[in-house]
Parts: sequence; structure tokens; C-alpha cells
Amino acid sequence: MTKTLPVIQPNQRPAGQPPIFDKIGIVGLGLIGGSIALRARELWPSSLVIAVDQKDVLEAAMRLHAIDVAADDLVVLAEADLVVLAAPVRQNIELLAELDDNVRQPAIITDTGSTKRDVVAAAAQLPPRFTFIGGHPLAGAAQGGLERARPDLFEGRPWILTTKASDHSTPLDKLSAFVRGLGAEPRVMEAAAHDRLLAYLSHLPQLTASALMHVVGDAVGQDGLSLAGRGLADTTRLAASPDDIWKDIAATNRDEIGPALDALIEVLRALRADLAEGDRLGEVFTDARRWRERLKKQQP
Amino acid sequence: MTKTLPVIQPNQRPAGQPPIFDKIGIVGLGLIGGSIALRARELWPSSLVIAVDQKDVLEAAMRLHAIDVAADDLVVLAEADLVVLAAPVRQNIELLAELDDNVRQPAIITDTGSTKRDVVAAAAQLPPRFTFIGGHPLAGAAQGGLERARPDLFEGRPWILTTKASDHSTPLDKLSAFVRGLGAEPRVMEAAAHDRLLAYLSHLPQLTASALMHVVGDAVGQDGLSLAGRGLADTTRLAASPDDIWKDIAATNRDEIGPALDALIEVLRALRADLAEGDRLGEVFTDARRWRERLKKQQP
Repeated sequence: MTKTLPVIQPNQRPAGQPPIFDKIGIVGLGLIGGSIALRARELWPSSLVIAVDQKDVLEAAMRLHAIDVAADDLVVLAEADLVVLAAPVRQNIELLAELDDNVRQPAIITDTGSTKRDVVAAAAQLPPRFTFIGGHPLAGAAQGGLERARPDLFEGRPWILTTKASDHSTPLDKLSAFVRGLGAEPRVMEAAAHDRLLAYLSHLPQLTASALMHVVGDAVGQDGLSLAGRGLADTTRLAASPDDIWKDIAATNRDEIGPALDALIEVLRALRADLAEGDRLGEVFTDARRWRERLKKQQP
Repeated sequence: MTKTLPVIQPNQRPAGQPPIFDKIGIVGLGLIGGSIALRARELWPSSLVIAVDQKDVLEAAMRLHAIDVAADDLVVLAEADLVVLAAPVRQNIELLAELDDNVRQPAIITDTGSTKRDVVAAAAQLPPRFTFIGGHPLAGAAQGGLERARPDLFEGRPWILTTKASDHSTPLDKLSAFVRGLGAEPRVMEAAAHDRLLAYLSHLPQLTASALMHVVGDAVGQDGLSLAGRGLADTTRLAASPDDIWKDIAATNRDEIGPALDALIEVLRALRADLAEGDRLGEVFTDARRWRERLKKQQP
């Protein structure tokens, strides 16, 4: 059942850049989908931003002037020439199967999920009028939600596009121009390389931060936490993350996250065995300090 | 051999508060010792701040106007009525044994080390003219050194004083007033309780951050790190810490840090075994998010 909400007239909006896509469909208006919508409306006033989500989210998005057309049904994407799936990973995979019935013209399909191999594999079943290119903007925050969306979320951040290294197609050019327009820096790599890299850059730190906060909180309690300093606060900032998104990430990248966890557990066990001597501690700290200096230099 | 450097005349300094101690000896002018010196000179101009460290450090401290008297030998502490040992933990323990020969009058002795049981045990050998009360300002930074010292380092931060719960002595009152003057909030607890608490609040997060940075850096290399976001940066901020201080902490608190590491390893192993299902992940994330919210509320 379609419940199309009123269309906001775009003719009041200021002139912007020439459009890359005429009708931009965004499925899922959280932090990422909402931020794409906000920036796209600023940048390309003659493009229509069409959003699909639950009705309460859409109403909030209307109040934020983030979208032009809103519906809780994919049928509203019939004429979209770009569809961005911005729901959690496994929901995006389910949504792929529904596109053939709803998107009626040739379109570029992309997603914003944190793992890529499963969605790329599922996209192989799409009919030939669609071109799928996976996407992952590296611009998350520990806490998501439309209320934290902002048009400059992607400014200067990498946006990984997963396709074959040999891809020099027009759809890749258009999608690259789109994410560049949003302020991001497109980086092309294959899905498998993405999933391995992100297992270390994002998934392992997230699991570690949550495990650490869980262990420390349970051990010291509320009173103990009142004595905590900035060190614990920084190290556990990611522990504010929601578990629903992370269940999807863990499940769809478990073969890469598993060995990453093994490597960390191995180092922690070695440190534990060597607390009195500190030889391994010296090696680990020295290496870590070196990497940390390099990481710091690269932070915006 | 004593090499006393020139005394800076204190008579040019503005009037401050009435002194708590007449001659404040500080052994070790790093981040903590240097910050104590800077604030003490501001606050108590009629107190003399006497520093012991290596000559190059003392010269830098003189340039910062952080101290009144400087020497590379403990004999300069002969008339001190407060001695603050602010070197790494095991060096402080060695220094304790030298105080009887150098400090010639009754004095309060304290330290600023991150573990307390070993130093408290060693202090039991001090002659009866000294009163030892362990101290630990919870105001560190990932990177130490005199060049980062600042007079407001302790502002609003807890400063743990370790003594018996039944202690209501004058030395405890005076030392509490001293650390309150430095801007800190004194908290009294026994050494064993301190060491257990800090194993979780500080030592476990430190080892985890360094282990994580080591594993991630080695896995993804320089190119991979160029794609890292704020999540990894925050989670590994502590990995900038120096290993010499941390070898001392690990060795002198190994019986508390060991079980803390075991608890973390256990949770990481459980998450690893459950990546596909995500049940344990859901539990750990939910509990961690709850603790994280409480921690965030308590941050300054």
C-alpha cells in the first residue's frame, strides 16, 4: 500500500549546480541517508530527492527540508535514475530484490553499508537495466539517526566505491561525480579489499571499544567510573554505537573480523604473560606509538 | 656530587596564599612534577619549590620559571617539609631508600605513581620522622614531559591519597589541603583498592589501545591508515604513551591487570565465536552503551 506524502515544490529553491541525476532515490533516512539528502538538495536544486522510510522518519525529514518527495513504499522510486540504499546492510540486501518491481527505468544502484561482499553478490541478480556499484562513505559517527544528519558530514572524508579495478564506465564516473559533489573523496577498490581493510580500521576498534566498556563498567560500577579520566573516555567513545547495525556488520564480514579479533587476542595474551618482564610490552608499545604518530598526521 | 644551580629569587613574585609547606621538594620534573611546581609557585610565593632531576631538565624548568632551587642530587632536600616523588613507580621506590640520608628534618613524603601497593610497602621502611601518604593525581595525558606541564593540569581532577580509612592525621589534612590548592579533589582510599580500580580505569584501556594500534597498523600499513576515521583515532589515542612508565605500572600491578586482561580476552573470544548470530554482541553492546552513557555524564 502506497502512502505518498505531499510533494514539496522545488521551484522556490536557489539555483545550484547542473544535476548529475534527475531523480535521486534514498532508502533509509538515518545519519548517512539524511546527510546525503540535505547536501543533494542544497547542491542540485533541479534534482528531485525522493525518500523511502517509515512515516515518522519521513515527517521529521520534511520538517528538516531534507527531501522533496516521501513515501513508505518503494513504488515512489519508479522514475529514479539513482537509488541509494542507506539502511543497515542486511536490509539493503533484501531491498535489492524488490527494485526490479519498483524502479521502472535504467538506474544506477548504490548502497552505503559498512560491508560490501554480500551486497555485491546479491546485486549480481539485478536485471541488466540496473548498474550496481557498492559505496561506503567513511563518515560515520558513534551515534546515528536523522537528527544528527548534516549536509557537511562527508566533507573531506573518503567514500569507497567498490567495483572491478578495470571499471572505467560512465556509471562509475557519474557516481564518483555525485559523491565528490557531496564533499567526499571517491576511492575505488574491490569489495573483498574493502571488507578486509574495514575489518581492521573500523570493525575491530568498534568491537574492542564495546568489549572494554562492558568489562570496565561491570568491574568498577558507577562509583568507579566517577574517577575515570579522558583516556578511558576516548578509548570507549565508540561504545555508544547501536547494536542493530553492528550485528549486520559482524555477520556479513565475520570471516575477516574473526582473524582480526584473533590477532588482537593473541597480543593481549602475550602482554598478559609478560607483565612482570615487560619485554613484549616494550615491543608492542614502541610499534603502536610509531603507527599512532602516522595515524595522527593523517587525521583531518 | 652536588651541582646546585643558581637560586631564583622569590621576592619578585606576587603575594599568594599562606603556605602549607615551607620547602616543597619535587623529585622528577615530568608532566606531573612540572605541573605541581608551576602551580605551587603561583599559589604559594613564600614556599620554596626545590626540584631534583637531571641537569638538562632542570635548566628547562628554570627557563619556565617552574622552580626556585634545582639540583641533580637529593641532598638539596635537606630542609624540605614535603617531598613529592614524581618519577616512574620503580624509581620512586628506589628513591625512598635514599631519603633518610638526605632529608634531615621531619617531612611528609608522597608520590604521584600510578600504582600504590609496592611503594606503600617500601615506605614502611622509612624512619619515624617521615610520614608517607601515597598519592595519584588522575590527570595524566597520553604524552608526558616537562614541556607539556601546565599549572591548571589538576583543575577539577581527582587526586587519590592512599592511607588507612581510619587516618584522620594532621599530615593527611595538610596533604589534602596541598592537592586541593593545586586544583584537584582529594579522594582517600587504601592502596589495594586503588590498584584494583586503576587496573580497570587506566591500565586495561592503555594496554588495549596499544595492542589495537599495533595490530591495526601492522595489518593495514600506512596506505590503509590513510582511510581511518575518528573512531580508530579516538580508540587508539592512548597508544602514544611511552613504554618506560608503563613497564613499571604493569610490573607493580600485574596481579590486578592480569585478571582484567583475562576478562577482556574472554569477552573478545565470546564475540568472535558469535559473529554470525550476534546474540552475545547484542548483550555486550547494550551493556556497554549503558555504561558509556553514565561515563559521558561524568566527564568534565
